[in-house]
Amino acid sequence: MKSDIDRLMRERELDAIIVTGGEEFNTARYYLSNGARITHGAIFKVIDEPALLVCNRMEVEEAAKSGLVVQTDVELGYYDRLKEAEGDSQKATVHFWSDVLARLGLSEGRVGLYGAWQVNKTIALYKLLAAELAQYEFVAEAEGTLIEEAMLTKDADEIRRIRSVAERTNAVMAIVWDYIAGLRRAGDDLLDDGGRPVTIGDIKALTRRELMARGLEDTAMIFAQGRDAGFPHSRGEADMPLQAGQAIVFDLFPRELGGGYHHDMTRTWCIGYAPPEIQATYDRVMQAFDISVEAFGLNKPTHLMQEAVLDHFEGAGHPTIRSHPSTMEGYVHTLGHGVGIDIHERPSISHMRKDELCQVGNILTIEPGLYYPERGFGVRVEDLFVVDENGELVSLTPFRKDLVIPLKDDGGEHNDE
Amino acid sequence: MKSDIDRLMRERELDAIIVTGGEEFNTARYYLSNGARITHGAIFKVIDEPALLVCNRMEVEEAAKSGLVVQTDVELGYYDRLKEAEGDSQKATVHFWSDVLARLGLSEGRVGLYGAWQVNKTIALYKLLAAELAQYEFVAEAEGTLIEEAMLTKDADEIRRIRSVAERTNAVMAIVWDYIAGLRRAGDDLLDDGGRPVTIGDIKALTRRELMARGLEDTAMIFAQGRDAGFPHSRGEADMPLQAGQAIVFDLFPRELGGGYHHDMTRTWCIGYAPPEIQATYDRVMQAFDISVEAFGLNKPTHLMQEAVLDHFEGAGHPTIRSHPSTMEGYVHTLGHGVGIDIHERPSISHMRKDELCQVGNILTIEPGLYYPERGFGVRVEDLFVVDENGELVSLTPFRKDLVIPLKDDGGEHNDE
Repeated sequence: MKSDIDRLMRERELDAIIVTGGEEFNTARYYLSNGARITHGAIFKVIDEPALLVCNRMEVEEAAKSGLVVQTDVELGYYDRLKEAEGDSQKATVHFWSDVLARLGLSEGRVGLYGAWQVNKTIALYKLLAAELAQYEFVAEAEGTLIEEAMLTKDADEIRRIRSVAERTNAVMAIVWDYIAGLRRAGDDLLDDGGRPVTIGDIKALTRRELMARGLEDTAMIFAQGRDAGFPHSRGEADMPLQAGQAIVFDLFPRELGGGYHHDMTRTWCIGYAPPEIQATYDRVMQAFDISVEAFGLNKPTHLMQEAVLDHFEGAGHPTIRSHPSTMEGYVHTLGHGVGIDIHERPSISHMRKDELCQVGNILTIEPGLYYPERGFGVRVEDLFVVDENGELVSLTPFRKDLVIPLKDDGGEHNDE
Repeated sequence: MKSDIDRLMRERELDAIIVTGGEEFNTARYYLSNGARITHGAIFKVIDEPALLVCNRMEVEEAAKSGLVVQTDVELGYYDRLKEAEGDSQKATVHFWSDVLARLGLSEGRVGLYGAWQVNKTIALYKLLAAELAQYEFVAEAEGTLIEEAMLTKDADEIRRIRSVAERTNAVMAIVWDYIAGLRRAGDDLLDDGGRPVTIGDIKALTRRELMARGLEDTAMIFAQGRDAGFPHSRGEADMPLQAGQAIVFDLFPRELGGGYHHDMTRTWCIGYAPPEIQATYDRVMQAFDISVEAFGLNKPTHLMQEAVLDHFEGAGHPTIRSHPSTMEGYVHTLGHGVGIDIHERPSISHMRKDELCQVGNILTIEPGLYYPERGFGVRVEDLFVVDENGELVSLTPFRKDLVIPLKDDGGEHNDE
């Protein structure tokens, strides 16, 4: 968690870190600035010292909300450096960073670079830093980075925020369930009060409205029906009409409005009735879900959970990415991932990652699934869990896990030939 | 525009470009993949050849919407490379890229790197590319990049999309105006039908709902009142009640839902009545707005427009960033910027950028303003313009530019002491 930063710097022998970037949403900057809504600015932190947020003068009021020490680029002399560099902003930045580091008492040492930015600008700046500032060694981590390690466990405030997003997301899922349950069936079409066929686009619009009313924003939900549900990341076609008796994968992973913490959950639904093949596949996935939860253990490697699921699916004759690494059918993804400011964080729950442990403060998904696009369906079920202070795996996603949404005025007459 | 890419590659002596990145929104990838909603994947383009989109197998259906040639990382052998590299994804990526370039017929040459990604991962990958693939020279542009140059002029389809976003944004502005005009005044408070004071948070929520109903998403609108309006990038405090007779800067710059093209506009409003000092400042800003539009000329440098405004404000005794480079009062920003997939694109309209010209296909803002936070107000007025095929500067922002929102049942009795 955030309070580990100095320790993580020490482990990496970093004397300072700099978090930089452009106007893109910048996870590391959001994290270390405690969510300040700035679009420019860099964070400088010397080990065991408080962090300094250097902001654009136009954003000084927003920057102050970070709780960090704040100074503007103007007062620290950026524009003097820009003038010296005849308008070359990268050259100015290099000398400005050297000024700031010196002012923070660091005249030499190892400096870790983090943040998010254009690939081309990042590389160009790095080359200039390496060429011009020989007194510093600039360190770039590829994997297991300081920021990732810090975010791997959440502090109490982060858990509180994610719990709140979870409650609101579960509530929206319930509203969508109830809306669908109230539709009228005509053959396999589903009609609204006005007698119009309801589309996936209608459901997504309802979901977005209800999220927004609760201070959340959609980040590209999946509501994929039939064959589309068989591709784990197909988003679903807005103009496709809802159909009874089809598998629908509804993966909802909104975040706090404007960027912030996520919740992540998936349900698979059949409206009105479930064909036996989909029901059987669903039951198999639910067994896998229960097996994963059983396989959890505090400080136990996460890959054991994935392997339990792989064993289960392979034992029932389904191809997996372990048995058939390039398969597009069967169980084609890993079991889960951490969730926070990013939708995919650590820990991974993968048979390819033997080094991940379940720790107190992890927030992670469990989401087994089976996919048969050529047979016209896919199934996934996903809850978000916290590993609480007692080391227990606690679901943040209490919403019901029924496959079939019964239609309120469907007197049981259906069409499951 | 997009059709210039081969020419722009030739000018830079690039034999190929690679656009890469992580799950972050990636402007270059969005642009070159024609808006495909993928979260993984890289684009490879050899000069004068069609682009290849390499996607994750889970996103193949979405990737196909790009209209590019699509292949999955599985079929191109990424996972074999990953196995060889014993799970080191950066090492695997380096050799995979070499495989893909070779398959596209490029065994040596200059390769431009673009996209958006974590700073640390980008630098680490670049170092590995440079070390392992000596047959290629990897080129990273800091300024005036190929992507920026291409996006500088919009094609007919892009202009059509931005026009549509503009129409919808203007419609939402009108709804907010009408809502405010219908409020009831009690002193300087503004009450809704239920007699509750309306807050900035209420107005932002209304705005977001109306945007969403039109397929748009807010990207951090500014609705800043009083002293907050005096800081160009203060977002406004959600719990602050609306007040009559205060300057309100409303800067609305939504984009297509899920990422896409923007529109950008600002109005400054006083509800019920305007104090004379704010009215006089507003009139001065509107003169500057008209002067900017007058100063436009096809193929004329943009800085002349900014300089006309600087002359105008300085002549009236206002400090500017030219006369007082570190000022926090007066005219503290540049006159405008291009708008597209990013909210800030080229061309810049700045006295610091002498090299920008107004060209057919530019989409750009004009947004003069004056800021006096210590006197409790700021003023900005902004339209978005297209330089059309006739070389004319045409506003996409017809919404009225009145300072005062008259209250419907305010019999003129006000409080402008």
